[in-house]
Amino acid sequence: MTSSVKAIVFDTFGTVVDWRGSIIRDLTAWGAAEGLQIDWTGLVDRWRDHYNPQKARVRSGELPWTNLDELHFDALKAVFAEMGLAELDHDRMMHVNKVWHRLDGWPDTSRGLHRLKSKFIIGPLSNANVAILVNMAKHADLPWDNVFSCELFQHYKPDPETYLGVCKLLYLEPGAVMMCAAHNYDLAAARSLGLKTAFIARPTEYGEGQTTDLTAEQRWDYVVDDLEDLARQLGC
Amino acid sequence: MTSSVKAIVFDTFGTVVDWRGSIIRDLTAWGAAEGLQIDWTGLVDRWRDHYNPQKARVRSGELPWTNLDELHFDALKAVFAEMGLAELDHDRMMHVNKVWHRLDGWPDTSRGLHRLKSKFIIGPLSNANVAILVNMAKHADLPWDNVFSCELFQHYKPDPETYLGVCKLLYLEPGAVMMCAAHNYDLAAARSLGLKTAFIARPTEYGEGQTTDLTAEQRWDYVVDDLEDLARQLGC
Repeated sequence: MTSSVKAIVFDTFGTVVDWRGSIIRDLTAWGAAEGLQIDWTGLVDRWRDHYNPQKARVRSGELPWTNLDELHFDALKAVFAEMGLAELDHDRMMHVNKVWHRLDGWPDTSRGLHRLKSKFIIGPLSNANVAILVNMAKHADLPWDNVFSCELFQHYKPDPETYLGVCKLLYLEPGAVMMCAAHNYDLAAARSLGLKTAFIARPTEYGEGQTTDLTAEQRWDYVVDDLEDLARQLGC
Repeated sequence: MTSSVKAIVFDTFGTVVDWRGSIIRDLTAWGAAEGLQIDWTGLVDRWRDHYNPQKARVRSGELPWTNLDELHFDALKAVFAEMGLAELDHDRMMHVNKVWHRLDGWPDTSRGLHRLKSKFIIGPLSNANVAILVNMAKHADLPWDNVFSCELFQHYKPDPETYLGVCKLLYLEPGAVMMCAAHNYDLAAARSLGLKTAFIARPTEYGEGQTTDLTAEQRWDYVVDDLEDLARQLGC
């Protein structure tokens, strides 16, 4: 089966990068240097709580297409209000918002992707917009062949336009494309359209005590320990 | 001025890859192995003659958006007819059409791009569709951060939607993006929209006796000998 796979696309937040740990580290250090008294761990968890409701509003058509940098900024302002914090000046609010451009990979990420790139076309298939993904790749050494941002399709995952959009741009049948994700819902959507699937558990994506996506909930085509294990299983 | 440039986008056909020489080498070797009696040099020149008229029909709206792989295939069939050749079977016609995915860089290309990538976001801004550009990058070791195909914008250069589309996706002002091309018309369009410009002469793009684009026709921001020279001038 693997001989027919030509391209592998990756969910990014959680699967490729440790968004929560990166944001806490980045903003804690920066906030201390700036003399800000903000509970950044509390902030990031509240911030991410806005993500699924925001995406749902775009996917339902309640909101017109809005990219993730813009959704993040709206949510960030809401979180400051929820926490009773005065907003920072514009440049500093933008610096905080752009922390999503400065996320670190998991320890296996960069090495695993470099190996996979030797044999497959690799790219993110992410709800993040192009600017986030391009800047993140520079920051974390993610050697993508191309960035398949959902911004290109003006649809968020798990809308079928995203998975099929990759196939169309690459002139590949769905069975020649594999989706790799740490989230079962993402793989279920990809499989329903004919893509191959690879699951990788990231049990600390949401911090200690995470209760979701700890195990593969279907018999995915591959279940791997990390991206180096995926490379190994695929003969890279 | 260069300190403000964050991204450099490159025309590909001619600027980055030697399309004519590559196609002649590739198809001459393949055609001999297949036992085909075809004048490939004549074929490639006729094939390329269709390119500008085809683009003009799309840009004027006479044709709906059609990507370059499809335009190439239409033109290839026309060229076979013009040359009085019987079409090959479908798989072999597709192999010929996909020669545009297998183009080689100029001798300075890969090394120059690797150096430029250390300091800038780099990508093609090309009329080629995504599949051509992704496959070409694998073939010729072009380490793009992202592929800015005109297919994403559904407009061919020099339509402004292409240059401005890059700026929008990267959240960059036009002055923070530089267009690098071997064609003066491409740079003129980019400059008119506020982008920075770099000219590189490729005097054998069209073979011996080329008469166009031998020199810079305006005072472009940079005029370079090759992509390694561009890297050098930009301190990479």
